[in-house]
Amino acid sequence: MPQLRMALAQVNPTVGDLDGNTDLHVEWARKAADAGAHVVVFPEMSLTGYPVEDLSLRETFAEASRARVQRLAGLLADAGCGDLLAYVGYLDRDEAGPRDAAAALYRGEVVARQFKHHLPNYGVFDEHRWYKPGRTLDVLRLHGLDIGMVICEDIWQEGGPVAALGDAGVDVVVAPNASPYERAKDDVRLPLVARRAAEANAPIVYTNLIGGQDDLVFDGDSIVVGTDGELLARAPQFVEHLLLADLDLPSGEHAPEGEYEGLRVRRRVLSDEPAPAFEPPAEPAISEPLPDEAEVWSALVVGLRDYVRKNGFRSVTFGFSGGIDSAVTAALAVDALGADAVYGVSMPSEYSTEHSRSDAAELARRLGCHFRVEPVADMVRVYVDQLKLAGTGLAEENIQARVRGMLLMALSNLEGHLVLATGNKTELAVGYSTIYGDAVGGFAPIKDVFKTHVWALARWRNAEAEKRGETPPIPENSITKPPSAELRPDQLDTDTLPDYALLDDILDDYVEGDRGFADLLAAGFDPAVVDQVVRMVDRAEFKRRQYPPGTKITFKAFGRDRRLPLTNAWRETHEGA
Amino acid sequence: MPQLRMALAQVNPTVGDLDGNTDLHVEWARKAADAGAHVVVFPEMSLTGYPVEDLSLRETFAEASRARVQRLAGLLADAGCGDLLAYVGYLDRDEAGPRDAAAALYRGEVVARQFKHHLPNYGVFDEHRWYKPGRTLDVLRLHGLDIGMVICEDIWQEGGPVAALGDAGVDVVVAPNASPYERAKDDVRLPLVARRAAEANAPIVYTNLIGGQDDLVFDGDSIVVGTDGELLARAPQFVEHLLLADLDLPSGEHAPEGEYEGLRVRRRVLSDEPAPAFEPPAEPAISEPLPDEAEVWSALVVGLRDYVRKNGFRSVTFGFSGGIDSAVTAALAVDALGADAVYGVSMPSEYSTEHSRSDAAELARRLGCHFRVEPVADMVRVYVDQLKLAGTGLAEENIQARVRGMLLMALSNLEGHLVLATGNKTELAVGYSTIYGDAVGGFAPIKDVFKTHVWALARWRNAEAEKRGETPPIPENSITKPPSAELRPDQLDTDTLPDYALLDDILDDYVEGDRGFADLLAAGFDPAVVDQVVRMVDRAEFKRRQYPPGTKITFKAFGRDRRLPLTNAWRETHEGA
Repeated sequence: MPQLRMALAQVNPTVGDLDGNTDLHVEWARKAADAGAHVVVFPEMSLTGYPVEDLSLRETFAEASRARVQRLAGLLADAGCGDLLAYVGYLDRDEAGPRDAAAALYRGEVVARQFKHHLPNYGVFDEHRWYKPGRTLDVLRLHGLDIGMVICEDIWQEGGPVAALGDAGVDVVVAPNASPYERAKDDVRLPLVARRAAEANAPIVYTNLIGGQDDLVFDGDSIVVGTDGELLARAPQFVEHLLLADLDLPSGEHAPEGEYEGLRVRRRVLSDEPAPAFEPPAEPAISEPLPDEAEVWSALVVGLRDYVRKNGFRSVTFGFSGGIDSAVTAALAVDALGADAVYGVSMPSEYSTEHSRSDAAELARRLGCHFRVEPVADMVRVYVDQLKLAGTGLAEENIQARVRGMLLMALSNLEGHLVLATGNKTELAVGYSTIYGDAVGGFAPIKDVFKTHVWALARWRNAEAEKRGETPPIPENSITKPPSAELRPDQLDTDTLPDYALLDDILDDYVEGDRGFADLLAAGFDPAVVDQVVRMVDRAEFKRRQYPPGTKITFKAFGRDRRLPLTNAWRETHEGA
Repeated sequence: MPQLRMALAQVNPTVGDLDGNTDLHVEWARKAADAGAHVVVFPEMSLTGYPVEDLSLRETFAEASRARVQRLAGLLADAGCGDLLAYVGYLDRDEAGPRDAAAALYRGEVVARQFKHHLPNYGVFDEHRWYKPGRTLDVLRLHGLDIGMVICEDIWQEGGPVAALGDAGVDVVVAPNASPYERAKDDVRLPLVARRAAEANAPIVYTNLIGGQDDLVFDGDSIVVGTDGELLARAPQFVEHLLLADLDLPSGEHAPEGEYEGLRVRRRVLSDEPAPAFEPPAEPAISEPLPDEAEVWSALVVGLRDYVRKNGFRSVTFGFSGGIDSAVTAALAVDALGADAVYGVSMPSEYSTEHSRSDAAELARRLGCHFRVEPVADMVRVYVDQLKLAGTGLAEENIQARVRGMLLMALSNLEGHLVLATGNKTELAVGYSTIYGDAVGGFAPIKDVFKTHVWALARWRNAEAEKRGETPPIPENSITKPPSAELRPDQLDTDTLPDYALLDDILDDYVEGDRGFADLLAAGFDPAVVDQVVRMVDRAEFKRRQYPPGTKITFKAFGRDRRLPLTNAWRETHEGA
């Protein structure tokens, strides 16, 4: 049976960095050629990075991207990869507008350019804004085998481009992807791709991006699925990787060029001689997906690392309060950047407890990161005296949080660190934070992690350390003590908020599920608590708008996933309309 | 010839406020009935407010909106407006998903529900995210005359729903709209509507919203255009208004129900008896559009007023620096809210000049608003001493700006004012502002006004005052002195930035026009200056993300109009790709 060796180049490009991304393609195509591959498949928009957002509308950028694809064809040939058929994602543009495109490069030439057909316009995606849909499918014959291609969302459509390729007839389908990570999304991808393989009547070679881009992180998890739906190969998550798969392909008699499912299928022969016989790789390369907590931790580490690195920072600074949020943020930052890149700052006020100060110091000791103490009492006092804030409650509490924010920004100005905000999703949901205070920062690593999940991650990370015989990074006390903002004497979060387990349950239904009051009552929640939570969430929209970005790990993250008006008089109530 | 009296209810609803908006509809329908109108046309989504953004996806809200339309039909009949045919915009939802809808209410019943066909998904619009498109058109016969309807974007399409109505045959077309204000947009609307009137072979009754909603402001400018393109009536801009137009309609023989231009046209007869004869209104009601500066000023006043009012604030506070930006913001705030709602704060540092202090005081005196002086020296000193910031440049400069931001937030916490940020578009474009410093605020009234335009508005506002024999609100000195942030001795904006006239010219091409380097050189700009400006703009994206919203007045405002990645290595350069 004719064979092809397919290589999936699961790489981490940087948005807009055409030079760096070009080098990345040459490097990984070279690896694929060295491994004896006949075809290498890069992810969606691999040459430009993804998503480029409104850069898609910039004509100069589209022109540069088009020119790069052409140039890359020559560079690959010069690098001795000319006989490798390389699928490369890029931004195209024609008279109709910008296109989410992939090109096939072979022997120094661009032998096909195809555009994405289905443009997602929900969740974090605005692709009807950014692109025009394609209407053609290019099938290339290499070594006597017919290769079709679809891009990302195309593979989520039943009866779409994959079905058209199935009708026309192909021996294998390659699918460049940029599918952002969400918890448990990998459970969805494999059955989906298996259904499409059946529709195509051919194996599917699905390459996904890895790496962080602003609030998105891509987990890779590239797969090869046989015609019968069997998983043939799977790449590890969150790392660059070259996945190889040798496919035995029974080349069939295929239909001619023409219209299938409303799309134009074109065919081009690159070579008809069968590939020389080759030894299959010794190991079947099927990586196991990560368990849930490890997967989330990796997502947060990579999201943070790439935001810092791709934006030219070398170090981060943030408040070490002794609490669980800053402790988990610190452990993530050390895993992402190394202890020497992390600058913890303890900023005790007169309401800070002794245990908070010692827990913060203990955290720094365990992590081996930089640590300094900057008391805020003197600064707070000037404001309190000048504005007569003593005993005013919120105004006085906020001053402490804001003095801390200013201190961190001053250290950033002095030493060049990126400031991290340590808020979690629960806090952000109900507005339990001080705008321009603890909300200060360029990035917020645990912004999309609910409070109960923050605790679970802390326990998991400590347990992992113990398994490896290392010191658990997070002081036990930071995990077990009752959470407090410590902005007034004996303050506890539960003075203001419902118990976190209950609160996160309600938020999961209201924020993630977009459910109404009646539904929340039907789920068994107390009406008074639901009312309190819903009001807090609705009123905090203005704080979320000015909050820094952070890595999305849930179905619906705050930010472009959830676009609500600031001015909004609608309140979910018992009465309904 | 049969006649109809049409009423255009150019109203200002609040997003999500179904109770308030219901009352508004009853009140204005009553006015229309009292004026003898046969038909009243409310704007797009008048019952829910516009845009509701992701509230469109909330099932409870859609259900409440549907129920309200039904209830409103009864309320209008109860209020004695039953014989008035009322077109009301609302959010619908069916098995396909949410719909941007308008209903026709008559004698206590909902006699038609129609969905928007063309969904804009560019600029500030994400309507492919929010709605599913309609496929039907409802034509209602009232007093023997056939009335068709199209919603907003539908009227921007050649060969679309209007053409379908033209093919099927109607006597008049009503068009509920929510078309956000942009400078000079009214120049586009009239010729557009005239072209559609020709396509429909019928007059068009175009009602637009007024009022502010977050970063958008709607100017009204509702119009009635005859079959021949003649302007028959025009409402004033930026105020609620009932515009009446008596139309003489030659009722033609029309085609039957069926498919036209791919859309299903349905017909329903409400009444076949001609309307009783009536006197036309004595005055032809054609308001003149405002001259440019007056129009922009009104847009900024209404945008600010409605953000404050619709979010439940009664007063605003912000820094009075003595400079032009805070002076114009103050004059706008007084025009929007009255002098008693404006709390100016002068916050001199050791680098503040004497003239700045006196100009700030003079501004407050002219406006008659509240004014206090809070020196920042003592607060700044504690930071400078504790962190050893003396002579560090940026770190020390930023501390002053941030102390001011904290002071304003503390006053907001104490006294309940909304804090305004006074930055202009030029500053925001090049990042010439301190995040968490002068960028602090809930709303930024002149965020979309270029610096040279700020001066022009100041001169215009002063001249208007002089014409009316009032004191010009803005001290001449604030207009004429060279701009300075006064964060170090003898600092001038031109130390860091090109001359504002040149800078605004480049920004107009780069930000508004999305033009590349070669284009900017072709426009005659110096390559070194272009390079400096482009880099400043690209690097300031993170500051813009955390900036408060402000009223859009240009084609492309910062915010949802311009969505660029934070992590973005693409730079426009001389070399191109």
